[in-house]
Amino acid sequence: MGGIKMTKVTIFGKGNMGKAIGQNFVDARNEVNYIGSDDTVKNIGEIVILAVPYPAALKIAEKNSEKLENKIVVDITNPLNFETWNELVVPANSSAAAELASKLPNSKVVKAFNTTFAATLVSKQVGDKQQTTVMMASDDETAKKLLADSLKESGLAVVDAGALKRARELEAFGFLQMTLAAKEKISWNGGFGIIK
Amino acid sequence: MGGIKMTKVTIFGKGNMGKAIGQNFVDARNEVNYIGSDDTVKNIGEIVILAVPYPAALKIAEKNSEKLENKIVVDITNPLNFETWNELVVPANSSAAAELASKLPNSKVVKAFNTTFAATLVSKQVGDKQQTTVMMASDDETAKKLLADSLKESGLAVVDAGALKRARELEAFGFLQMTLAAKEKISWNGGFGIIK
Repeated sequence: MGGIKMTKVTIFGKGNMGKAIGQNFVDARNEVNYIGSDDTVKNIGEIVILAVPYPAALKIAEKNSEKLENKIVVDITNPLNFETWNELVVPANSSAAAELASKLPNSKVVKAFNTTFAATLVSKQVGDKQQTTVMMASDDETAKKLLADSLKESGLAVVDAGALKRARELEAFGFLQMTLAAKEKISWNGGFGIIK
Repeated sequence: MGGIKMTKVTIFGKGNMGKAIGQNFVDARNEVNYIGSDDTVKNIGEIVILAVPYPAALKIAEKNSEKLENKIVVDITNPLNFETWNELVVPANSSAAAELASKLPNSKVVKAFNTTFAATLVSKQVGDKQQTTVMMASDDETAKKLLADSLKESGLAVVDAGALKRARELEAFGFLQMTLAAKEKISWNGGFGIIK
């Protein structure tokens, strides 16, 4: 692989999102391993993706805060109230990412992948013309840089949306996009494209 | 004009957004008049667009609540704290639209046009491939229907994003989009396209 440094990526969750995200890291020539809900938590890579629903992500963070120390922990959740589909379950001025970060004071928490439907991560396109873009937010600049670098050859575009505080807006964006898809105003292969 | 009923549209504000919105209503063969900050408030149409910054929109609502009774009042604002560009000035669980609606209990308040940059309303495209889509939210279904019908021949697409409560998410979406443009991650001719 010449001078290319591969990053080791660990993905909690083997669902559609976990698999789609993992494939992109593989496409970009990183090493990926998965941890399912019944698996022992070991062999954790430098980048950890919590590709599980928000309540499960919180539990993983609480149970494994020591093992996740110094790791880049990526929160992909959209913390909807799935009974009402009418609000988020996190405080309005906060975010799932901020709540997770409070459980992981020694990890580098990044919000990412919550604004991209699984199908658009697989096809690397939103609809049939627009490249899929991953938006990310974090207070740790080196974490964002490594995440972006690790996806450079994946076929996805990556945009830095700012500090972790912007996770509030990324989650509102993801929530809105999901409500439009659920109401068939957009398809799960489409959504919000980021057009430069 | 055959059986086509034109809608009378009044736009408060003569800035880039007001002019771009007004042109679209003209393109769709509606009648448009403008009210500037020094003008007398009269000849108000069935649809009223408050194409001014949020603090000015609040003042217009407070001063003219009687004149705006039974009107469709469209709030296009993104209520940023323009000193910090780091938060909105409305409560986190509310929205500019909800705050305006509380001042206009007898009007039909619609959130719309806050997710489309002025240049994309003029060109009717986000970037060079994607049609510009106006997202709207309101508790008044007939108001949303008339607004959508009045824009049918404008060249813009219109998507119903749900109840006025969704204005929180539309404003987060608009805020995020503005921060990305201000940081030159996207251009003011691009932004978030709604791809079906």
